[in-house]
Amino acid sequence: MNAGQPSIFARIVAGEIPCHRVFENQHVLAFLDVNPLADGHTLLLPKRAVERLEALTPDEAAELGRAMVQVARKILGATEAPGLNILLNDGRVTGQEVPHLHFHLIPRRAGDGLGYRWQPLKRTAQELAELAQRIRAQP
Amino acid sequence: MNAGQPSIFARIVAGEIPCHRVFENQHVLAFLDVNPLADGHTLLLPKRAVERLEALTPDEAAELGRAMVQVARKILGATEAPGLNILLNDGRVTGQEVPHLHFHLIPRRAGDGLGYRWQPLKRTAQELAELAQRIRAQP
Repeated sequence: MNAGQPSIFARIVAGEIPCHRVFENQHVLAFLDVNPLADGHTLLLPKRAVERLEALTPDEAAELGRAMVQVARKILGATEAPGLNILLNDGRVTGQEVPHLHFHLIPRRAGDGLGYRWQPLKRTAQELAELAQRIRAQP
Repeated sequence: MNAGQPSIFARIVAGEIPCHRVFENQHVLAFLDVNPLADGHTLLLPKRAVERLEALTPDEAAELGRAMVQVARKILGATEAPGLNILLNDGRVTGQEVPHLHFHLIPRRAGDGLGYRWQPLKRTAQELAELAQRIRAQP
């Protein structure tokens, strides 16, 4: 996964590089993005250096879920933003820049110009039904 | 939270409206978005009708985290996409259209034109340090 040098996030987790920490427990760390899209833009990551979401164990995934809610509450409390985007870029093709899984928590306000590009496709019910069956059948 | 009529997702969870189901357990349901941004675009939601992430209990958040990893693996397995975005629109200001918390899982491929609008702000280390302190201090 992370053959060679530890990533910058592994070094932050190890305390070798400082961060603007907002939450930490045994399993996860959350700190401010230094190039924020909005004030309060936070990165939440598992302490274990895994690149992709799919590599998490069920217990690691559960801890990340618990922490996500706690950190979201804190960010909304401190920033008084009316909404939040949570975003995971999972895989290089998505723009994932650091090979250590990290969720972005991005406070949202009216007119901020942020958000996801939304360009829906047309698919028939038959096409959707066949694809759902293929996904369902996966281990 | 959902005073008045149940949302369309509550009715899907209740089995009153059909869906293209890809995963289900006691706690969560996942089904294909009928207006997909990419083939395999899936919605993952807790069965309990809560509007905002911040309303989840720790155990509900843990179950959602576990399911997220399982569903992501299935989608990537079936679509053979090299990457995935996970997106939560939490709050109306983000474009959340249905008042029942739901994560989008969106398979990504090179050149697909999808992704999040990325326009970083400039903030000083001092500004970040003060904000991190305020978030950290929240309950």
